[in-house]
Amino acid sequence: MADIQALIKFIKKEFNHSLKSYPLPKHPEYLYDPIRFALKGKGKRFRPTLVHLSGREFNTDPDTIMKVSLAVELLHCFTLIHDDIMDNDDVRRNMPTLYKKYDISSAILAGDGIFTISQLVLNSIGEKQKIILQLFNETVLEICEGQALDKYFESKRDISLKQYIEMVEKKTGALLGACCFLPAVLAGKSNNIIDGLKKVGKKVGIAFQIQDDLLEVFGEENIMGKSLGSDIFSNKKTVIAIEAKNSFKSDWEKIIGQFDGKNLVDIRNFMIERKLKDKVENLAESYFNSAYNTLLSLGLDKKSDLYKFLKIIQGRNS
Amino acid sequence: MADIQALIKFIKKEFNHSLKSYPLPKHPEYLYDPIRFALKGKGKRFRPTLVHLSGREFNTDPDTIMKVSLAVELLHCFTLIHDDIMDNDDVRRNMPTLYKKYDISSAILAGDGIFTISQLVLNSIGEKQKIILQLFNETVLEICEGQALDKYFESKRDISLKQYIEMVEKKTGALLGACCFLPAVLAGKSNNIIDGLKKVGKKVGIAFQIQDDLLEVFGEENIMGKSLGSDIFSNKKTVIAIEAKNSFKSDWEKIIGQFDGKNLVDIRNFMIERKLKDKVENLAESYFNSAYNTLLSLGLDKKSDLYKFLKIIQGRNS
Repeated sequence: MADIQALIKFIKKEFNHSLKSYPLPKHPEYLYDPIRFALKGKGKRFRPTLVHLSGREFNTDPDTIMKVSLAVELLHCFTLIHDDIMDNDDVRRNMPTLYKKYDISSAILAGDGIFTISQLVLNSIGEKQKIILQLFNETVLEICEGQALDKYFESKRDISLKQYIEMVEKKTGALLGACCFLPAVLAGKSNNIIDGLKKVGKKVGIAFQIQDDLLEVFGEENIMGKSLGSDIFSNKKTVIAIEAKNSFKSDWEKIIGQFDGKNLVDIRNFMIERKLKDKVENLAESYFNSAYNTLLSLGLDKKSDLYKFLKIIQGRNS
Repeated sequence: MADIQALIKFIKKEFNHSLKSYPLPKHPEYLYDPIRFALKGKGKRFRPTLVHLSGREFNTDPDTIMKVSLAVELLHCFTLIHDDIMDNDDVRRNMPTLYKKYDISSAILAGDGIFTISQLVLNSIGEKQKIILQLFNETVLEICEGQALDKYFESKRDISLKQYIEMVEKKTGALLGACCFLPAVLAGKSNNIIDGLKKVGKKVGIAFQIQDDLLEVFGEENIMGKSLGSDIFSNKKTVIAIEAKNSFKSDWEKIIGQFDGKNLVDIRNFMIERKLKDKVENLAESYFNSAYNTLLSLGLDKKSDLYKFLKIIQGRNS
């Protein structure tokens, strides 16, 4: 694992350098100060790393891959900024969210600006930019659909696990899928490989979101860089809430009714005692396993960087 | 003028048909219902009409022109949706604004979705889509900059006419400029023609915004399709407020202090008596004249449809 860790560190460093070098005007400050602040955030850069590792696997031109990775991270950043407004989230990565730091208008506008810059970056690749832009923007629409389902579910009493999976597949899986398959499109790989990589990314995305839901209850606040439990408190249809309600409806509603939005001890104990934590962890694992199997079926073995990186994602604690 | 009116009517009909035919999914309703509602609005379609007239002038492929006009109107629609949230505007074109009809989250998301669709439409043109997309997205950034200046000015006491012109040139002029010059780019015209058309559009955009500011005080509510005076009331730096303050500072501040946000009689009388209405109307006229002169210098005479259409815009009452 030492080599892959060094490689990821290298990619992250190169990526951050490239992002930082992107020429942003100073004027008007009302637009570009919030954009600069948003791009300064210390993200984990999972998505650009995926793009680079997939690009290395298929020997795609490194300059093009850097641009694709920039576009993908800018897109991710834009969706986070708008989602934080929609979800009233105050803190992200130990920093105030953009609309909290500035205001809602600045944050809407900064998101729009960052999304526009992602289009400009992607349009500047020297080859196949037409098909890449089409696939990229189809992915954006899918992300919007996922966020729409997430918001819609908030107003609903009962959401099934199937509905949840559809939502996170769009909201989180679509972009991870694009990170995996866009480099293969650039490399002119077969539809079989491209579709397979899309599936890998979607499965990882679903597992990733299930992990997120778990970390929102069982993570450590200082590592997570935000306060926990807010999704449960705001009646978000996390996989935890869905599974708990499915199996122990009245007990779960009682415990949620007593939840003050802060002290998670009772919820944690409930989840552990009723084996719900195990159940949800197993669900995430099954999606990771499915992703590994698909990857192996495409001819990428366990020694490939992509495979190793997915293992690292699976083991994350924030 | 009869011919041009019939032509505009024809273009508008064809355009509305094309917009209506764009295939939008049904599911999820949370995303696509607001998008459908927003696109149903009875817009004046000034921008797509400009694109079509410019396209006819340069014999650009009609199918491509239709796509460019769709992308431009979708972009305009997206900026209106987000601007209405930022400006707390409740009514537009006799309809509730999107965030009032639904909520802020739905409106942010619908705007993002419509903007994404505009990218997909523009990327689907068969030729020169790379340069067209670059110019389009540079225009979007300029519009964001204009809106940023507009928001920033709200918090400032004194804004000069020069600052106002910079703001509206970006906020309104940039897109009208793109409507005029994108068809010329597609037709492979010289940089001289393209730059000239950009100037024409920008000048018209500035004049258009000055008209808007005037109509916000002197228009008729039922024709305008919204309540008037809100820009004055919310301390927006309209050209009226700037010119009134420049020439009659204390009197203007007194009259604004007494303004209840509804009864515009005193403000109208003040503007007329102090010749401020004339002054602002002359300013709009000077920008229109400058646009006409530039158009003539490019070889388009007074019988051209583009020239005639600008004359129609100049004469609008809503």
